[in-house]
Amino acid sequence: MTSTDSADIISLDTLAVDGAVADGAVAGSAGTAAPARGGRGGRGGRGGGRGAEARRAVRRSGGLQQLKPIDRKIGTYELLDEQALTTIEHNAETILEEIGIVFHDDEEALALWREAGADVSGERVRLPRGLCRSLLASAPETFVQHARNPERSVTIGGNHTVFAPVYGPPFVRDLEGGRRYGNIEDFRNLVKLTYATPSLHHSGGTVCEPVDLPVNKRHLEMIKAHLTLSDKPFMGSVTAPERAVDTVEMARIVFGADFVDQNCVVINLINANSPLSFDSTMTESLKVYARAGQACIVTPFILAGAMAPVTGAGVMAQALAEAMAGMALAQLVRPGAPVVMGTFASSMSMQSGAPTFGTPEPALVLYGMAQLARRLKVPFRSGGSLTGSKTPDAQAAYESQATLQPTVMAGTNFVLHAAGWLEGGLVSSFEKLVMDADQLGMMHALANGVDMSENGQALDAIREVGPGSHFLGCSHTQANFETAFFRSVIADNNSYEQWEADGAKDAVVRANAVWKARLAGYEQPALDDDRAAALDAFVAERMASMPDRWS
Amino acid sequence: MTSTDSADIISLDTLAVDGAVADGAVAGSAGTAAPARGGRGGRGGRGGGRGAEARRAVRRSGGLQQLKPIDRKIGTYELLDEQALTTIEHNAETILEEIGIVFHDDEEALALWREAGADVSGERVRLPRGLCRSLLASAPETFVQHARNPERSVTIGGNHTVFAPVYGPPFVRDLEGGRRYGNIEDFRNLVKLTYATPSLHHSGGTVCEPVDLPVNKRHLEMIKAHLTLSDKPFMGSVTAPERAVDTVEMARIVFGADFVDQNCVVINLINANSPLSFDSTMTESLKVYARAGQACIVTPFILAGAMAPVTGAGVMAQALAEAMAGMALAQLVRPGAPVVMGTFASSMSMQSGAPTFGTPEPALVLYGMAQLARRLKVPFRSGGSLTGSKTPDAQAAYESQATLQPTVMAGTNFVLHAAGWLEGGLVSSFEKLVMDADQLGMMHALANGVDMSENGQALDAIREVGPGSHFLGCSHTQANFETAFFRSVIADNNSYEQWEADGAKDAVVRANAVWKARLAGYEQPALDDDRAAALDAFVAERMASMPDRWS
Repeated sequence: MTSTDSADIISLDTLAVDGAVADGAVAGSAGTAAPARGGRGGRGGRGGGRGAEARRAVRRSGGLQQLKPIDRKIGTYELLDEQALTTIEHNAETILEEIGIVFHDDEEALALWREAGADVSGERVRLPRGLCRSLLASAPETFVQHARNPERSVTIGGNHTVFAPVYGPPFVRDLEGGRRYGNIEDFRNLVKLTYATPSLHHSGGTVCEPVDLPVNKRHLEMIKAHLTLSDKPFMGSVTAPERAVDTVEMARIVFGADFVDQNCVVINLINANSPLSFDSTMTESLKVYARAGQACIVTPFILAGAMAPVTGAGVMAQALAEAMAGMALAQLVRPGAPVVMGTFASSMSMQSGAPTFGTPEPALVLYGMAQLARRLKVPFRSGGSLTGSKTPDAQAAYESQATLQPTVMAGTNFVLHAAGWLEGGLVSSFEKLVMDADQLGMMHALANGVDMSENGQALDAIREVGPGSHFLGCSHTQANFETAFFRSVIADNNSYEQWEADGAKDAVVRANAVWKARLAGYEQPALDDDRAAALDAFVAERMASMPDRWS
Repeated sequence: MTSTDSADIISLDTLAVDGAVADGAVAGSAGTAAPARGGRGGRGGRGGGRGAEARRAVRRSGGLQQLKPIDRKIGTYELLDEQALTTIEHNAETILEEIGIVFHDDEEALALWREAGADVSGERVRLPRGLCRSLLASAPETFVQHARNPERSVTIGGNHTVFAPVYGPPFVRDLEGGRRYGNIEDFRNLVKLTYATPSLHHSGGTVCEPVDLPVNKRHLEMIKAHLTLSDKPFMGSVTAPERAVDTVEMARIVFGADFVDQNCVVINLINANSPLSFDSTMTESLKVYARAGQACIVTPFILAGAMAPVTGAGVMAQALAEAMAGMALAQLVRPGAPVVMGTFASSMSMQSGAPTFGTPEPALVLYGMAQLARRLKVPFRSGGSLTGSKTPDAQAAYESQATLQPTVMAGTNFVLHAAGWLEGGLVSSFEKLVMDADQLGMMHALANGVDMSENGQALDAIREVGPGSHFLGCSHTQANFETAFFRSVIADNNSYEQWEADGAKDAVVRANAVWKARLAGYEQPALDDDRAAALDAFVAERMASMPDRWS
C-alpha cells in the first residue's frame, strides 16, 4: 500500500480538540450560529438579549446551537442557456394562452380572472400571453417569514436557503417501533426533534399525519404544536379553507392581529392538480392566506409520464405555466402577497409506474426551474432529501443526497422535505431525519465557499512547514483547526478496531441514539402565559363547535 | 393526505415495458450503448465488425450493455472567480519559486531540472516562476488511452469523464465473507465484476492488494488479470521502477511494441509525498512510463491539516504546485507524454485526526482544482465514491454521493475510486461496487442534460392531454417511455407490501445478488492465443527470475 491513495489513520495528539459535536458546527465565519434560547416576552417569544441566560441555555442543550438559513456565497449552477430558457418560457405562455388552466368549483377565482382580462369559458381559464408575468410584478422577490422568536425568522428568496422537514406522511418509522400510522404524539415528537435540530431552520407543517385525531380537527392540534413546542417558523393547514382560517386566527393570537396583517408569519403549500388544473380546496386556501398577507408556495406536483410529459423540457413548460397561474391568482386576491414558485417533479419506474427519487431527470428539471424562478423574480421551492426506499439504508442515502446536492447548487430558497422523508413520502423516519439533517449542516459549509483571505491562502503556513514535514502542529493549523471542517454527528470515522469496540453500529443505529438524546434534552421554548391560554381556549372552542369527522 | 406532496403509487398497465434492467440503460440518444463483445484478432482484441456475434454476446450477457465514457452536454460548475483563480495560481508559482519541491534519491530528475533552468540545491528544486507552466505546453489537452478492444478505448480530457474502480485497498468485504485481507482470487473477481459493469469504463489498477502473493511479484499477476480477464483499459504498477518496466513489457506483448510507442495503452497513478516532495519510487516509475509515452496521473494525496494547510485556498495552491512539478518532470523526460493533473484531498476528523470523506471542504477543493486544470489545459483526475464508513450503510452512501456529485459537476475527466471504495480506502467492497456503479450510470443521464428538441418540449403532448387528464397512455409517453428515465438495478421502488413480500431486502442484500449474478454470467473476452501464451511465458520467466519478497 506504499504511496497509494489509501488512507492511513493519523494520530493527532498534538491538538486539543473540543469533544462536543453538533451539526451546527460549521467551518468559517459565515456559520453564524445563534445561541438557542427560550424566547420570551413581546409577541410570545420576543424580548431583550439575555446573554448569560442564552449561554446557560446552550450549555443545557448540550452545546447544541441553531444555524441560520444558508446565505450562499457561491454561485448557482446554471444548467440551461438563454435560448432554452426563452423557449420554455414561450411554451409556458403558449400553454396558458391556448390550452389554459381549469379552476374547479371556485366562482370567485373565475371572476377574478375574468376581471383581469382572461378568457374564461366554463371553468377553463385561458390567460393572454404575458398576463401572469405582469401580475407577478407585484410579488416580492424576497420576504421574511417571521417566527415567534425573532432569532428564528427566515428570509425566503435571494441567496437564502431555508430547510424544513418532511411534509405529509401518514406513516412514521423508527428503529424500535418499525413502520406504523402516525399519531399526535409522533407529530409532537417530530416538532420537538425539528426544534432541537440546528440545520432545520423551519418547523414545517404536516410532519406526519396524526391519524388518531379526527380529520376535521387535527389541524388545530398540529398548529398548536408548532406554535407552542417550537419557536421556529411554521406552515399552515391547506386541507380546507376553514382550516386555513383557523391557522390565521391562531397565528393572530400568538403574533398579534396587526403584526399578522403587516407581516408574513405562516407559509403554506398549495399544490396544483397537474396537468393544468387547480382544485377548489387549494384555491380557497390560497385565497384565505393571500388575503391575510400570508405566503403560498404554489407547487405543481408532477410524476413525469403521469401528470406531465416524460421529457424534462415538457415538464418545465407545464410546471411553469401552472405555478405562474397559481401565484398570479394570489396577486389578484392581494397584490404583494408573498408567493413562492414550487416544483416537485419525480421520475417513474419503468417496471411498475411507481415514482422514483434521486434520479437524474428530476435533478435536471430542478436546475432549470430554479433558473426560471429567478427570471420571474420570485423565490423558488423544490428538492429535499427524497427517496423511494422503505428503510434508511444505502438506497435512501444515495437518493437523498442525489436530490439534495442539486437542490443546493440550484439555489433553491425553500426546501421542504429536507429531512426525514422516506418511502416516497409515505413515511416520516426519525432516524432519517437526523441523518438528513447532518447532511443539511454540511450544505451550509459548502455554500460558504472558499475563504480567499490571507489566512485562507495560508502561504505563510506552507513556508513555515516546508517540504517533507507535516502541518499537524503548525501555528496556522492550531489557529484554524476547530473551525476548519464540518463536524458530522452521524459519521463514524474511527478505525475499524475502534468502531468494532464501540459495537459495530451502522449509521441508523447511531442516528437512533442521536434523536433520542435530542428529545431527552428537549426544553420547550417559553410562550407568554396569556397567549398560551388564549390559544388553548381557541382550540377548545373550535373542537367543541363541530362533530368529529374521520374522512 | 389530500393534495399533499405524498406520492401515490400509480398503476401503469397501459404501458408495455421491457423488464430487463441494467445500469447501462440511460435516457436519451447520448446513452450510446456499445454492444459487449468478445474482442478478437488484431492487437489481441481487434477485428472486423461481427454484428450477429455481438448481438449474441449481448444476449449471452443477459442484455448487459457497456456505456461509453460520459461526453458531457452540460456545463461545468465554476466555483472560483477569475481573481481567486489568479491568486491561487500566483501562490503556486510562489511556492515553486521560493520554497521549491524536494525530489528524493533521484539524481536523474535533479539533472533534468538543472538542465531546464531550475535552481537545484541538494535535493531541493526551486522552479522559476512560469517554468512548469511553459514545460506543460507540450502536454496534450486530451488523449486516448487505448484498450485492447478498441470499443473500450477512452478519451481522457475535454468533455469526457471516465469511471474506474477503487484502487489500493489491502482488505475486501462482502456480505457473507465480511472483512478480510484481499487475495488474487478477490482481485480477479473484482476485475471480472468491473468488466461486467456497464458504467465502469476502465478496469482500474490495484482493485485490491493480493496479499497472498509476494510483494515483488504480485504486479505480474495483477497486470495479467487486467490484460486477460478484461478488455477495458487498465492501470500499471508504480510500486517500483522495475514493475513499471514489467507493465510496459506486458502491454507491448498484447498491443505490439510499435503501437505502444506511438499510443497510450496504460495509465498510472503517481502520488506526490505532500507537502512538496516526491519519493524516488514515484519519480522513477513516472520516468519509465513517460519515456514509454504512457500516461501519468500526478496526484498530491492530501489530508488537509496534515499534508497541507487546513484551509481550501492553501490546499489548492500547494496541490497545484506539486502537480505541476510532477507533470512537468514527465515533459522533461519526453515532451508530449500524456499527463493528468490529480487531486486527492480529504478533510480530517477533529476528534481523532482520521480522514473524513463526503464532507463539504474537499468538494470545494475539487471544484477549484478542476478549474485550475482546465486553465492549465491538462486533463483532471479527482473524486470518486469516497467514504469513511466501515459498511455499505447510509453513511457510505451519503458520503459517496456527496463526493460523486461534485466530481461530475466539476467536469472531472478521470475518476478513480468511482465504485467499491469503503472504509477510507482500506476496503474494496463487492456490494458497494455495484451500488456505486448504479449511481455512475445515473451520472451519464445527468450529463446528457435536457433535450430541447421538439420531442423534448412535448408541446403537442400537453395539447393532446389537456387539463385534468393524464399522460400515461398518450402517444408521446408511449414513444418516449422506454428511454425517458434512468433505470436503477439497485433501487427498490415497489410498494411497501410488495417489498415485504419480496423479503424486505435492503440495498446491500439486493447488491449482493447483483454482483453474484454478474460474476456468474461473466464470460472472458477472447485474446489471441499467441499473445496469451507470450504473456504467460513472460510472467513465468519474471517470476522465476527472483526470490519471493514479502515486504
